[in-house]
Amino acid sequence: MSQLETAMAILMQSFDKYACAEGNKCTLTKSELKTLMETELPSFMKNAKDQGEVDKLMKALDHNGDGEVDFNEFVVLVAAMTCVCHDRCPKK
Amino acid sequence: MSQLETAMAILMQSFDKYACAEGNKCTLTKSELKTLMETELPSFMKNAKDQGEVDKLMKALDHNGDGEVDFNEFVVLVAAMTCVCHDRCPKK
Repeated sequence: MSQLETAMAILMQSFDKYACAEGNKCTLTKSELKTLMETELPSFMKNAKDQGEVDKLMKALDHNGDGEVDFNEFVVLVAAMTCVCHDRCPKK
Repeated sequence: MSQLETAMAILMQSFDKYACAEGNKCTLTKSELKTLMETELPSFMKNAKDQGEVDKLMKALDHNGDGEVDFNEFVVLVAAMTCVCHDRCPKK
Protein backbone atom coordinates (compact mmCIF):
# COMPACT_ATOMS: atom_id res chain seq x y z
CA MET A 1 0.00 0.00 0.00
CA SER A 2 1.24 3.50 -0.77
CA GLN A 3 1.45 6.14 1.97
CA LEU A 4 -1.72 7.85 0.78
CA GLU A 5 -3.63 4.55 0.61
CA THR A 6 -2.47 3.86 4.19
CA ALA A 7 -3.85 7.24 5.33
CA MET A 8 -7.19 6.50 3.64
CA ALA A 9 -7.33 3.06 5.29
CA ILE A 10 -6.63 4.60 8.73
CA LEU A 11 -9.51 7.08 8.23
CA MET A 12 -11.90 4.22 7.50
CA GLN A 13 -10.62 2.02 10.34
CA SER A 14 -10.75 4.86 12.89
CA PHE A 15 -14.36 5.70 12.03
CA ASP A 16 -15.50 2.06 12.04
CA LYS A 17 -13.74 1.37 15.36
CA TYR A 18 -15.75 4.03 17.20
CA ALA A 19 -18.99 3.77 15.18
CA CYS A 20 -19.54 0.12 16.11
CA ALA A 21 -19.56 0.79 19.87
CA GLU A 22 -23.32 1.40 20.14
CA GLY A 23 -26.46 1.91 18.05
CA ASN A 24 -26.11 2.12 14.25
CA LYS A 25 -22.71 0.63 13.32
CA CYS A 26 -22.43 2.94 10.30
CA THR A 27 -22.71 6.23 12.23
CA LEU A 28 -21.23 7.96 15.27
CA THR A 29 -23.60 8.87 18.09
CA LYS A 30 -22.79 11.95 20.17
CA SER A 31 -21.09 9.80 22.78
CA GLU A 32 -19.07 7.85 20.18
CA LEU A 33 -17.96 11.15 18.58
CA LYS A 34 -16.82 12.39 21.99
CA THR A 35 -14.77 9.22 22.62
CA LEU A 36 -13.23 9.41 19.13
CA MET A 37 -12.27 13.08 19.53
CA GLU A 38 -10.85 12.63 23.05
CA THR A 39 -8.82 9.56 22.06
CA GLU A 40 -7.72 10.40 18.52
CA LEU A 41 -7.52 14.20 18.61
CA PRO A 42 -6.79 15.12 22.22
CA SER A 43 -5.07 18.37 21.25
CA PHE A 44 -8.20 19.57 19.43
CA MET A 45 -10.35 18.62 22.41
CA LYS A 46 -8.25 20.27 25.13
CA ASN A 47 -10.69 23.16 25.37
CA ALA A 48 -13.79 21.07 24.85
CA LYS A 49 -14.01 19.05 28.00
CA ASP A 50 -17.69 19.76 28.56
CA GLN A 51 -20.61 18.26 26.71
CA GLY A 52 -21.60 21.70 25.34
CA GLU A 53 -18.61 21.73 22.99
CA VAL A 54 -19.37 18.25 21.70
CA ASP A 55 -23.00 19.29 21.12
CA LYS A 56 -21.82 22.25 19.02
CA LEU A 57 -19.41 20.07 17.00
CA MET A 58 -22.09 17.44 16.43
CA LYS A 59 -24.54 20.11 15.23
CA ALA A 60 -21.94 21.56 12.84
CA LEU A 61 -21.06 18.13 11.40
CA ASP A 62 -24.52 16.63 11.17
CA HIS A 63 -25.49 18.05 7.79
CA ASN A 64 -28.49 15.83 7.23
CA GLY A 65 -29.79 16.55 10.74
CA ASP A 66 -30.34 12.95 11.86
CA GLY A 67 -28.48 13.42 15.18
CA GLU A 68 -25.63 11.09 14.12
CA VAL A 69 -22.40 11.63 12.16
CA ASP A 70 -21.97 9.37 9.12
CA PHE A 71 -18.67 8.60 7.39
CA ASN A 72 -19.01 11.38 4.80
CA GLU A 73 -19.68 13.93 7.56
CA PHE A 74 -16.68 12.58 9.53
CA VAL A 75 -14.36 12.88 6.52
CA VAL A 76 -15.41 16.53 6.06
CA LEU A 77 -14.32 17.16 9.69
CA VAL A 78 -10.94 15.47 9.22
CA ALA A 79 -10.39 17.27 5.88
CA ALA A 80 -11.17 20.65 7.45
CA MET A 81 -8.88 20.02 10.42
CA THR A 82 -6.07 18.80 8.17
CA CYS A 83 -6.34 22.00 6.09
CA VAL A 84 -6.08 24.10 9.27
CA CYS A 85 -3.00 22.12 10.39
CA HIS A 86 -1.38 22.38 6.95
CA ASP A 87 -1.85 26.16 6.90
CA ARG A 88 -0.11 26.39 10.27
CA CYS A 89 2.84 24.14 9.43
CA PRO A 90 5.94 25.93 8.14
CA LYS A 91 6.62 25.06 4.49
CA LYS A 92 9.91 23.41 3.64
CA MET B 1 0.57 10.46 17.79
CA SER B 2 -2.84 8.80 17.54
CA GLN B 3 -3.82 6.82 14.44
CA LEU B 4 -5.97 9.67 13.13
CA GLU B 5 -3.21 12.23 13.68
CA THR B 6 -0.85 9.91 11.77
CA ALA B 7 -3.30 9.81 8.83
CA MET B 8 -3.55 13.62 8.83
CA ALA B 9 0.26 13.92 8.89
CA ILE B 10 0.58 11.51 5.94
CA LEU B 11 -1.91 13.61 3.91
CA MET B 12 0.19 16.73 4.50
CA GLN B 13 3.52 15.01 3.83
CA SER B 14 2.25 13.35 0.63
CA PHE B 15 1.01 16.64 -0.80
CA ASP B 16 4.17 18.55 0.13
CA LYS B 17 6.43 15.83 -1.29
CA TYR B 18 4.94 16.15 -4.79
CA ALA B 19 4.09 19.88 -4.68
CA CYS B 20 7.73 20.90 -4.17
CA ALA B 21 8.96 19.19 -7.36
CA GLU B 22 8.47 22.22 -9.63
CA GLY B 23 6.94 25.71 -9.74
CA ASN B 24 4.92 26.92 -6.72
CA LYS B 25 5.88 24.70 -3.75
CA CYS B 26 2.39 25.12 -2.22
CA THR B 27 0.44 23.74 -5.22
CA LEU B 28 0.43 20.75 -7.56
CA THR B 29 0.93 21.42 -11.26
CA LYS B 30 -0.74 19.09 -13.75
CA SER B 31 2.45 17.06 -14.06
CA GLU B 32 2.95 16.85 -10.26
CA LEU B 33 -0.68 15.71 -9.85
CA LYS B 34 -0.09 13.00 -12.45
CA THR B 35 3.03 11.74 -10.64
CA LEU B 36 1.23 11.78 -7.28
CA MET B 37 -1.77 9.86 -8.63
CA GLU B 38 0.35 7.29 -10.48
CA THR B 39 2.61 6.68 -7.46
CA GLU B 40 0.19 6.96 -4.55
CA LEU B 41 -3.08 5.81 -6.08
CA PRO B 42 -2.12 3.43 -8.90
CA SER B 43 -5.40 1.51 -8.66
CA PHE B 44 -7.41 4.69 -9.26
CA MET B 45 -5.19 5.59 -12.21
CA LYS B 46 -5.29 2.21 -13.99
CA ASN B 47 -7.72 3.55 -16.55
CA ALA B 48 -6.20 7.00 -16.78
CA LYS B 49 -2.93 6.39 -18.52
CA ASP B 50 -3.40 9.20 -21.00
CA GLN B 51 -3.03 12.91 -20.35
CA GLY B 52 -6.72 13.48 -21.19
CA GLU B 53 -7.82 11.81 -17.96
CA VAL B 54 -5.40 13.89 -15.88
CA ASP B 55 -6.69 17.03 -17.61
CA LYS B 56 -10.27 16.11 -16.64
CA LEU B 57 -9.28 15.38 -13.03
CA MET B 58 -7.32 18.63 -12.77
CA LYS B 59 -10.29 20.59 -14.13
CA ALA B 60 -12.66 18.94 -11.64
CA LEU B 61 -10.34 19.62 -8.68
CA ASP B 62 -9.21 23.11 -9.55
CA HIS B 63 -12.13 25.01 -8.00
CA ASN B 64 -10.51 28.43 -8.12
CA GLY B 65 -9.48 27.94 -11.75
CA ASP B 66 -5.79 28.85 -11.39
CA GLY B 67 -4.56 25.75 -13.23
CA GLU B 68 -2.97 24.29 -10.08
CA VAL B 69 -4.31 22.13 -7.24
CA ASP B 70 -3.79 23.59 -3.75
CA PHE B 71 -3.86 21.59 -0.49
CA ASN B 72 -7.55 22.25 0.20
CA GLU B 73 -8.48 21.06 -3.31
CA PHE B 74 -6.26 17.97 -2.83
CA VAL B 75 -7.92 17.11 0.49
CA VAL B 76 -11.35 17.28 -1.16
CA LEU B 77 -10.14 14.67 -3.69
CA VAL B 78 -8.79 12.34 -1.00
CA ALA B 79 -11.96 12.79 1.10
CA ALA B 80 -14.19 11.96 -1.88
CA MET B 81 -12.14 8.89 -2.82
CA THR B 82 -12.10 7.66 0.80
CA CYS B 83 -15.92 7.96 0.95
CA VAL B 84 -16.21 5.88 -2.24
CA CYS B 85 -13.85 3.23 -0.80
CA HIS B 86 -15.71 3.15 2.53
CA ASP B 87 -19.04 2.64 0.78
CA ARG B 88 -17.57 -0.33 -1.07
CA CYS B 89 -15.95 -2.00 1.94
CA PRO B 90 -18.05 -4.64 3.68
CA LYS B 91 -19.02 -3.57 7.22
CA LYS B 92 -17.88 -5.70 10.12
